Amino acid sequence: MEFSVIPIGYVKKSQSQVTIAIIDEYWDATTHLERFSHAIILWWIDRRDNPSDRKAVLAMPPKKKGNDPTGVFACRSSSRPNPIGHTIVKIDSLDPVNKRIVIDYIDADSDSPVLDIKPYLPSSDRVENAKVATWFRDLQPRYC
Amino acid sequence: MEFSVIPIGYVKKSQSQVTIAIIDEYWDATTHLERFSHAIILWWIDRRDNPSDRKAVLAMPPKKKGNDPTGVFACRSSSRPNPIGHTIVKIDSLDPVNKRIVIDYIDADSDSPVLDIKPYLPSSDRVENAKVATWFRDLQPRYC
Repeated sequence: MEFSVIPIGYVKKSQSQVTIAIIDEYWDATTHLERFSHAIILWWIDRRDNPSDRKAVLAMPPKKKGNDPTGVFACRSSSRPNPIGHTIVKIDSLDPVNKRIVIDYIDADSDSPVLDIKPYLPSSDRVENAKVATWFRDLQPRYC
Repeated sequence: MEFSVIPIGYVKKSQSQVTIAIIDEYWDATTHLERFSHAIILWWIDRRDNPSDRKAVLAMPPKKKGNDPTGVFACRSSSRPNPIGHTIVKIDSLDPVNKRIVIDYIDADSDSPVLDIKPYLPSSDRVENAKVATWFRDLQPRYC
């Protein structure tokens, strides 16, 4: 069984700006997005969309020594059965003339396809006291 | 252009338990998931995987009167170009015998395909002070 997903836009990075360029027919789907400060971006990690990366079930935590192999569902490795990237971003502004959403940052290469945009809702998306594996404990929250 | 996604498991709901049943070949991908208290579940909203729901760009906020139509990227409508559900859940336990992850809750129907599981990381996923549209402001955080 498989399902089909399509790009609704693309990440566009330049030296001065990070934006999501929305495909024309989907621009109206951003109506009132400016009422939110942050959004969840689901994007396609296209450089990992190959049989070998999609078969990976274990990964080595990067840049840390002494950790044992970790399941790809227990880390954020880009090699995974469905290479869907998930990034919380700050919405800086909407640019209706160029049909772009200006954001602060995304850990996706320029031209990566974007699959979905969802407003960030503290009621369902914020966890106040989450337990994490040791090697994540020293990371500073980006949006503290 | 389109990309293919596959189920790595299924939501299973009974009167006593909510679980994600992992397909055998992906069970090892949950290795060390017990080190995290919460996870991001990406699932396929299969009842909305039809041309009409996938063409929707505007939605009416449910159960609220007086709101104008909102873009599907500015709300959490299940009718969207790519019907990918996104739910933060609490991991209660892992059941390696039956290859299931026991969770507290998910807003998905039983038998919904699951596409991805990612550990919840406050460093990238928690936003301390997010601005939201008026009609979300009174919702109590589930994981305050």
